[in-house]
Amino acid sequence: MDKKIHLSEEEIPRFYYNIMADMPNKPLPPLHPGTRQPLTPDLLEPLFPKDLIMQEVSSERFIEIPKEVRQIYAQWRPTPMFRATGLEKLLDTPAKIYYKYEGLSPAGSHKPNTAVAQAFYNMVSGAKRITTETGAGQWGTALAYACQIFGLECEVYMVRVSYDHKPYRKVMMNTFGAQVYPSPSDRTEFGRKILAETPDSSGSLGIAISEAIERAVQDPHAHYALGSVLNHVLLHQTIIGQEAIVQMEKAGDMPDIIVAPFGGGSNFAGITFPFLHLNLTKGQNIRCVAVEPTSCPKLTRGEFRYDFGDTAGMTPLLPMYTLGHDFIPSPIHAGGLRYHGAGVLVSQLLKDGLIEAVSQRQERCFKAGMDFIKSEGIIPAPEATHAIATVIDEALKCKEEGVSKTILFNLCGHGYFDMGSYEAYLSGKLVDGEVSAEDIRASVASTDGLQPA
Amino acid sequence: MDKKIHLSEEEIPRFYYNIMADMPNKPLPPLHPGTRQPLTPDLLEPLFPKDLIMQEVSSERFIEIPKEVRQIYAQWRPTPMFRATGLEKLLDTPAKIYYKYEGLSPAGSHKPNTAVAQAFYNMVSGAKRITTETGAGQWGTALAYACQIFGLECEVYMVRVSYDHKPYRKVMMNTFGAQVYPSPSDRTEFGRKILAETPDSSGSLGIAISEAIERAVQDPHAHYALGSVLNHVLLHQTIIGQEAIVQMEKAGDMPDIIVAPFGGGSNFAGITFPFLHLNLTKGQNIRCVAVEPTSCPKLTRGEFRYDFGDTAGMTPLLPMYTLGHDFIPSPIHAGGLRYHGAGVLVSQLLKDGLIEAVSQRQERCFKAGMDFIKSEGIIPAPEATHAIATVIDEALKCKEEGVSKTILFNLCGHGYFDMGSYEAYLSGKLVDGEVSAEDIRASVASTDGLQPA
Repeated sequence: MDKKIHLSEEEIPRFYYNIMADMPNKPLPPLHPGTRQPLTPDLLEPLFPKDLIMQEVSSERFIEIPKEVRQIYAQWRPTPMFRATGLEKLLDTPAKIYYKYEGLSPAGSHKPNTAVAQAFYNMVSGAKRITTETGAGQWGTALAYACQIFGLECEVYMVRVSYDHKPYRKVMMNTFGAQVYPSPSDRTEFGRKILAETPDSSGSLGIAISEAIERAVQDPHAHYALGSVLNHVLLHQTIIGQEAIVQMEKAGDMPDIIVAPFGGGSNFAGITFPFLHLNLTKGQNIRCVAVEPTSCPKLTRGEFRYDFGDTAGMTPLLPMYTLGHDFIPSPIHAGGLRYHGAGVLVSQLLKDGLIEAVSQRQERCFKAGMDFIKSEGIIPAPEATHAIATVIDEALKCKEEGVSKTILFNLCGHGYFDMGSYEAYLSGKLVDGEVSAEDIRASVASTDGLQPA
Repeated sequence: MDKKIHLSEEEIPRFYYNIMADMPNKPLPPLHPGTRQPLTPDLLEPLFPKDLIMQEVSSERFIEIPKEVRQIYAQWRPTPMFRATGLEKLLDTPAKIYYKYEGLSPAGSHKPNTAVAQAFYNMVSGAKRITTETGAGQWGTALAYACQIFGLECEVYMVRVSYDHKPYRKVMMNTFGAQVYPSPSDRTEFGRKILAETPDSSGSLGIAISEAIERAVQDPHAHYALGSVLNHVLLHQTIIGQEAIVQMEKAGDMPDIIVAPFGGGSNFAGITFPFLHLNLTKGQNIRCVAVEPTSCPKLTRGEFRYDFGDTAGMTPLLPMYTLGHDFIPSPIHAGGLRYHGAGVLVSQLLKDGLIEAVSQRQERCFKAGMDFIKSEGIIPAPEATHAIATVIDEALKCKEEGVSKTILFNLCGHGYFDMGSYEAYLSGKLVDGEVSAEDIRASVASTDGLQPA
């Protein structure tokens, strides 16, 4: 049995898979933030190129990947799948564990899968620059990389706490030619408002999104890009799961359980949606488990509501599991999972019982990460350790019950820029955040006035 | 034409190539540091396992790679080769440029190629732990990774200036289970001596080697490992060039010029020796160019002499191009190239005119690195930018002369742990070191008493 399951360049997928086509219950429509009426696609034109808006609202099952985008993908795709023989041995489990490794991309995560597509469609539309936000920096790095390829300027609003704690992420974006600003910044009205109220604000993804959108709306040559949550972003990531299906077939196996970390949904959707296609259309029964941090528990403790995607309330209202757009998660190291809401598609699937969600504590995740480094030799990003913790839980359950299940997870990125987090863990200085039921109730209440009558 | 030239797992080489078999002039023998008599292999037994000593002195052309080592290699090998279409376009050159990319290994460089082999033979020999030194941290990381696989303890002496400036490299080694100490340390007699003389010593590779050797010699369960210079280390790296030959054949091409950065020689030997085999036995005429920093110019301005490999004078005397074992290079960011001497095999080849050497200034190298990031989307380690600078020189010469040559280089590692260096470059704060002819004369003179009568 080979450790690595390889695909050839010809096996890079030719289509994105759109789960909208197969969902038994279609998601509720996004609403205009002012009128509360269903949004018409043309209202998104100040923010996104037409091609991406079409993808956002499409119900076509397969959408062709442009040749130019596939060529760029070929720099690092198809990504390898590994059988986690070392981890299986460490756990002494009868379970078979596989992982898809997305950390070998030039930006070090799965994010370039959508960044390259978004930059390409923006270039085609004639845009000159893209504005965006970034938390831990994975998404900002990916978009900076992609913009450079297609000759676009890239303006990144980086959550202040990350900007200060992870200066090397900023430099990495700079080497890819991006301009990076700490958010809240004095470059936007909303940023100045926050700074006036809270001069030492450490920022949040919601605030950074508001700033990036404000900049894009004001500049006729700029568009905005988001790294998760939206339908077209999740769509682009489905190349991960499509490759994984072929790799599982080559291994002569098929997963019983798929596990992925959950921030806004792009990582989870990327690996699970193509398998959910098999569940929804071919009678398969694969469990798909999203893992969120206990300190930002929108899927396991949030409510399904209409809410804004940002703090200022500039985005459309989206029907999603949310903790309320005012929710500020504790500063855990998995910055990519610190978002108050879940993407619309994933929220509907969870509501319909077609996927599952669990939460994991930060300390437990780093312990799982260390077990993984020890047994598999790869240093995972803090986000990815959430999946590993749940994979270990499931593998130990197999051992207890004496059954051999096949578990697949998405190792979404490397942790080379997160050594400070590992140092905190190794020196016993990791502090987890607690969220009380009252906190969540109060925060979700901020969405009350947003619900349709 | 494909951008990426891929090999399958079956194409991982089965043998290391030993250039000793094909050299027209064999290297002079290493000498015992006390008696100045040719060293007998048994004297190396306190430091290395027998299998590695045999490889060190072997003149067999091909040495089989153990099955267990090939299995580990398969985690990241064969490594991809890329046609640098973006860089060619940026330079508007008729030259064809290819690069072999070793940065996708779990340690991020080519170093695990030998670290895994060395750890394996140590495990077989019954050693419990390995001591070593590291400069920038690439080698220490690789050995930590390899030791963990084979259940060995790993004790790393890290040059003080790197230990202080690159704390995340240290943490990375810690996550792989290694103990890391700043050198000079108070754990060895030699370290204590240096600290007594110079309490704020910033250390050097030569000092760190002395400390690691002292620890290994005193501990019956420990061996010592070196990441470059020695014959067996260069031998292990030849899998890079062997893969590259097959990849060039698949591309229907063959290099006219091969370029690699030069520290102690492992990187350069890794990619060039298998091609030199073609030069030496098949009448090929491929130029092989080693690139060193102008601030540590042993190949271009050093002398061919017997010298120690370390500062304390604990190693055998080796016949090599050297700046003198007391030479302390200025603290450039390419820490892996800050070594006073060149490996014996490479030194002899240079002496015989079978390879070439040039030097590059640090600032020019970072500029070349930025051109590479812009056009190829990969962030190179500072060491690797030395090769890129010379590749650009050669490609521009092709343009000037209107000829199309094929240039291959070894992109030996990524620069994710070197963002501080890029930041210094981008903010105009990079300072290059100057070495005067007097400095070199004085330093080389420290080897005078070491020459055989």
